Amino acid sequence: MNKNAFRQLSYGVYVVSTWDKGRATGCTANSAMQITSDPATIAISINHDNYTNQCIQESGKFAISILGENSDPGIIGTFGFKSGRDHNKFDEVESLIKGYMPVVADACAYIVCDVIDKMETSTHTVFLGQVTDADVLKKDDAMTYAYYHNVIKGKSPKNAPTYIAEEQPAASEAKYVCGVCGYVYEGEIPFEELPEDYKCPVCKQPKSVFVKK
Amino acid sequence: MNKNAFRQLSYGVYVVSTWDKGRATGCTANSAMQITSDPATIAISINHDNYTNQCIQESGKFAISILGENSDPGIIGTFGFKSGRDHNKFDEVESLIKGYMPVVADACAYIVCDVIDKMETSTHTVFLGQVTDADVLKKDDAMTYAYYHNVIKGKSPKNAPTYIAEEQPAASEAKYVCGVCGYVYEGEIPFEELPEDYKCPVCKQPKSVFVKK
Repeated sequence: MNKNAFRQLSYGVYVVSTWDKGRATGCTANSAMQITSDPATIAISINHDNYTNQCIQESGKFAISILGENSDPGIIGTFGFKSGRDHNKFDEVESLIKGYMPVVADACAYIVCDVIDKMETSTHTVFLGQVTDADVLKKDDAMTYAYYHNVIKGKSPKNAPTYIAEEQPAASEAKYVCGVCGYVYEGEIPFEELPEDYKCPVCKQPKSVFVKK
Repeated sequence: MNKNAFRQLSYGVYVVSTWDKGRATGCTANSAMQITSDPATIAISINHDNYTNQCIQESGKFAISILGENSDPGIIGTFGFKSGRDHNKFDEVESLIKGYMPVVADACAYIVCDVIDKMETSTHTVFLGQVTDADVLKKDDAMTYAYYHNVIKGKSPKNAPTYIAEEQPAASEAKYVCGVCGYVYEGEIPFEELPEDYKCPVCKQPKSVFVKK
């Protein structure tokens, strides 16, 4: 079996959010697909280890913020590489309340759902949500996972089903890699000459967490 | 609720295939996502009305052929706009047998699965498949649904969850539209001057099925 075949499946880049007893929380996700059209339902897949999973089980609701190519890629890092258990992720990202749910203001569209069914797997829950509200927020092309990988040079967190353990940059020379999210610095200015307040554009961690590889 | 938000979800373009009592059959699908990584599982969504759904329920197996940007778009029409009940779709498309399953030879990758769970909805079955075989067939960028819409100018069959009834070209002048799949002819040669053996590049129907709109 050649797991590289899995990389050819196409995904978007989403923030799945919900309420944690009145506090907004969420996580980055790639797996969402419309299942029925009338009434509209959407399936999402969330790792059991993601705090958002537990919060969706309790609240029975989730929102999907669909990121666009022009959305700040830092949103992906904020929601993808930290845990909602001990971070108020929405403190760092501008939000809107839509359909009584927290969504990311810088997304190109959002969809709000009530959980109506679920399917458990060994590591993930597939939630089936019936759409209660949805709208377009701004004109932008949706960010695909391929765009995130190829243009933004982002990586997968370990909880993502799309994570492949051997995923490493094919480094022909020394590169500086963000130790938190795996972002590979490829700017024209040599990494050493970047200002000290440089931050990883994906996960917003400081220059000091970058490692030479 | 603005259903245009749903169009911002990202999908690929796939042929989901299986055996119908020894005869290969399948349908075009957009909804597939990896759920777990080890063991690897993939969820797909197939309309109850698609003959492929019934065949997967009976065989307990399915294959996903992942189409690339350079795959023949006619494959989408063959598998998307005809029923496997009365068409031997694989007679029109070159196939390979991989992991004991029929796959499309012109795909960029394939994934073969045993059904291990399913979730029924009002119109679609979400099948959860455990991967038994997978490989890359050729180097190509996976075709996204956005590419299919924007570059190939393809449309959704009515059984697709992504189908939106009001989906119509914003015609400012008369256009020729394939009456079977909705492909809009936008070539430089006036439609009337195309040779009589011209075929719709998406569903391979003859020039005579095009209607002026």
